[in-house]
Amino acid sequence: MAKVIGSVVATQKDPSLVGRKLMIVQPINADEQPTRSQEVAADMVGAGIGERVLLVRGAGARHATVNDVQKDVNDCSIVGIIDSIDV
Amino acid sequence: MAKVIGSVVATQKDPSLVGRKLMIVQPINADEQPTRSQEVAADMVGAGIGERVLLVRGAGARHATVNDVQKDVNDCSIVGIIDSIDV
Amino acid sequence: MAKVIGSVVATQKDPSLVGRKLMIVQPINADEQPTRSQEVAADMVGAGIGERVLLVRGAGARHATVNDVQKDVNDCSIVGIIDSIDV
Amino acid sequence: MAKVIGSVVATQKDPSLVGRKLMIVQPINADEQPTRSQEVAADMVGAGIGERVLLVRGAGARHATVNDVQKDVNDCSIVGIIDSIDV
Amino acid sequence: MAKVIGSVVATQKDPSLVGRKLMIVQPINADEQPTRSQEVAADMVGAGIGERVLLVRGAGARHATVNDVQKDVNDCSIVGIIDSIDV
Repeated sequence: MAKVIGSVVATQKDPSLVGRKLMIVQPINADEQPTRSQEVAADMVGAGIGERVLLVRGAGARHATVNDVQKDVNDCSIVGIIDSIDV
Repeated sequence: MAKVIGSVVATQKDPSLVGRKLMIVQPINADEQPTRSQEVAADMVGAGIGERVLLVRGAGARHATVNDVQKDVNDCSIVGIIDSIDV
Repeated sequence: MAKVIGSVVATQKDPSLVGRKLMIVQPINADEQPTRSQEVAADMVGAGIGERVLLVRGAGARHATVNDVQKDVNDCSIVGIIDSIDV
Repeated sequence: MAKVIGSVVATQKDPSLVGRKLMIVQPINADEQPTRSQEVAADMVGAGIGERVLLVRGAGARHATVNDVQKDVNDCSIVGIIDSIDV
Repeated sequence: MAKVIGSVVATQKDPSLVGRKLMIVQPINADEQPTRSQEVAADMVGAGIGERVLLVRGAGARHATVNDVQKDVNDCSIVGIIDSIDV
């Protein structure tokens, strides 16, 4: 789980990142307290600032594209917007 | 090892996550003390709240599906329910 | 490096874990002080409680099987028993 | 996110690292505070000392090469230079 | 980055580790302060005790072998000896 807290702009970047919305996410616990360090994640579901999201890393992050991206360097993706947390 | 502490609902999510039970898990030590930050894990064995479970991450998490899931983004799965811990 | 401190029993688990000895390991430094959180690891070399072992994670853990295991979910294996540590 | 803080020279190294600019990077949060430990990353976009960069690890880092590199050992690459951070 | 601080001997181990020099490494920052917990790494470049080295993990570690090793369990390799650090 993470919370979207901002975005980054990077003009000079790997071709596979072109056209992707790069958001800054803060990993959180169920009580919304920050846990790990912030990360940059490619937003694949149209998440907005302040929304709680599902985050995946590694090869799973590269599976989140609609079409196959050749030599995709991305290793962190937002793959869901959390409606509710029940603990 | 982890303990199931809750669940999340996310309507807007990657197609490969549709139909999966997404639980919130708290990684624990053998003495059930929390260790790492909480995570969302796809429940593949019908674990209930409060149960101690076996958690796997990365490609291993994607192998836990009965049928092959195309472009599976999942990177964390519950793959066992712990009956007993002996230390 | 880790020390074997116990074992877990899980009847309800992924088929690929059936028949495996699941041990609880405590990652340690050379001075045997605990470092990271405890983990469950599939024992591939017959390690006993109290023994210091070599631990691998991810795909390396899945390579430790004699025969190829289809859709292996395991992501942590004991692959060696440490005789001596020299620092 | 990370900040480029220096570089390393290693004459004796794996063939797949030959010809690569190896920079020292300090992972940071959006407020530029250091978060995780420093790492060595292969610079794929010509980043300079003091620049904030996008960092990827694992297989994603190996996808950042123009041509396919046989038996590439690299597991951390700089794949973008951050122009602006908006939080 | 890491510093080589010792070695381990393990007679009983996975076949893919036979013949490898298994060193104990302490991950460090540029100022040589310890950062993460110590690890066992397969030495692929003939590093000595006290030397600062380049460390890779996961699949990258398995690419560091001259010949392909079948079912290689190794997930951490020394792939370079650092001559100088410039920060």
